[in-house]
Amino acid sequence: MIRITVIGSGNVAQHLIKAFTKSDLVEIVQVFSRKKEVLSSLIGFEKIVSAFEDLKEADLYIIAVSDKAISEVSKQLPFQNRIVVHTSGTASLAVLDVKNRNGVFYPLQTFSKTKEVDFSTVPICLEAENPYDYRVLETVAKSISTAVYPINSEQRKALHVSAVFVNNFTNHLYQIGQEICEEHQVPFAILKPLIQETAEKVKTLNPIDAQTGPAKRNDSTTIEAHLAYLTNEKQKNIYTILTQSIQNNDKKL
Amino acid sequence: MIRITVIGSGNVAQHLIKAFTKSDLVEIVQVFSRKKEVLSSLIGFEKIVSAFEDLKEADLYIIAVSDKAISEVSKQLPFQNRIVVHTSGTASLAVLDVKNRNGVFYPLQTFSKTKEVDFSTVPICLEAENPYDYRVLETVAKSISTAVYPINSEQRKALHVSAVFVNNFTNHLYQIGQEICEEHQVPFAILKPLIQETAEKVKTLNPIDAQTGPAKRNDSTTIEAHLAYLTNEKQKNIYTILTQSIQNNDKKL
Repeated sequence: MIRITVIGSGNVAQHLIKAFTKSDLVEIVQVFSRKKEVLSSLIGFEKIVSAFEDLKEADLYIIAVSDKAISEVSKQLPFQNRIVVHTSGTASLAVLDVKNRNGVFYPLQTFSKTKEVDFSTVPICLEAENPYDYRVLETVAKSISTAVYPINSEQRKALHVSAVFVNNFTNHLYQIGQEICEEHQVPFAILKPLIQETAEKVKTLNPIDAQTGPAKRNDSTTIEAHLAYLTNEKQKNIYTILTQSIQNNDKKL
Repeated sequence: MIRITVIGSGNVAQHLIKAFTKSDLVEIVQVFSRKKEVLSSLIGFEKIVSAFEDLKEADLYIIAVSDKAISEVSKQLPFQNRIVVHTSGTASLAVLDVKNRNGVFYPLQTFSKTKEVDFSTVPICLEAENPYDYRVLETVAKSISTAVYPINSEQRKALHVSAVFVNNFTNHLYQIGQEICEEHQVPFAILKPLIQETAEKVKTLNPIDAQTGPAKRNDSTTIEAHLAYLTNEKQKNIYTILTQSIQNNDKKL
């Protein structure tokens, strides 16, 4: 059994606690949280501590707190030479205090409080300072997920920026689609199967090969009709810049 | 049995022929195509005609050709006062020759030749000039799909523009995500579960409520770090304009 302590009580911490609880290979020693109530349904009350000096020995400490708090939390840990990781997509390994053996345990998924996540398909990106520590992280990650990757801090930045495009920005395009529908009394539900199919296609096709639509076809009549139809300047700008970007694809080839 | 003739041999025509063949409520009388070979695996050779004068009587003629050919094809039809529809998201009902009773039968999905589509979940948007003809279209549509909607020409434009945002543009964001990953030797596969989850969330959450990320959080440190990390001007522009658009959301509320 690998003995783990989780530090934090937010979204990521809670989803990790749930996933570890189901695993036979790891054991949660303690959870550090200033707000004990938040975790009451997830873990025995006696395992929740809110003072750093109450932290017991563990094989791995996972700091799952907001990016800006990671460094300070790592400084406060009252021990050294143990494996300490954070779960951030943006923070580098170097933000952790050097007194411990540091690493990163970054689950790349969008977690919301209201929606259950099947952790077994969540990619976990790992980084460690030495091969032994990496092995420990890998064992822990594989106990909850089938998709485990070695990713260094530089690569993790690429992943995080890419995630902003495929998740945050994509979701915003869904919102614009909904706005246009509602402005014209059309149920947004009509578009939901298309949204699913668009995501489904990328499982088997390269996005560039799956591209369709007026921009791809250089169908300027439709593009102009769409721009004339849109009443909102923000939407027109986004339409224009993404259309140009798709059209520039073909020039590159 | 409702007797249908399909005019065209492209993607939409082929998917419709496949779907109608499985239905017990409709019968395909003929398919009009200049290229008989394309359809040889889908329908008996004797049912394929390539001269308009060979078209037999049917209850419904579905013109599934490119937008710019619809009008000309409808003019060439050697009969009048029958139900004739097109399958376009952009063309209005008025492009069809007035000698027939016109309508629209628009399946809103992204069809590709290589990927099977489950037609039962494809929304079909219908428009007709009178209630009787609408009833015929509705019966046909419901024989292949569970999602059938009355949508007039003006509403259909809204749907088509929205579809460009949620399908064409979203797919392009996937492509940019892939480009950033590949530039930094990161497997794009790591992002695929996130893409699926993003689409999955919109089934139950409003996009505006599902929004996460640095733009939503007004996390200017991360936004600046991302812009500094991106090496491509096109990507920087798209990042900037979509970030601003997400940030403007909150101002509206």
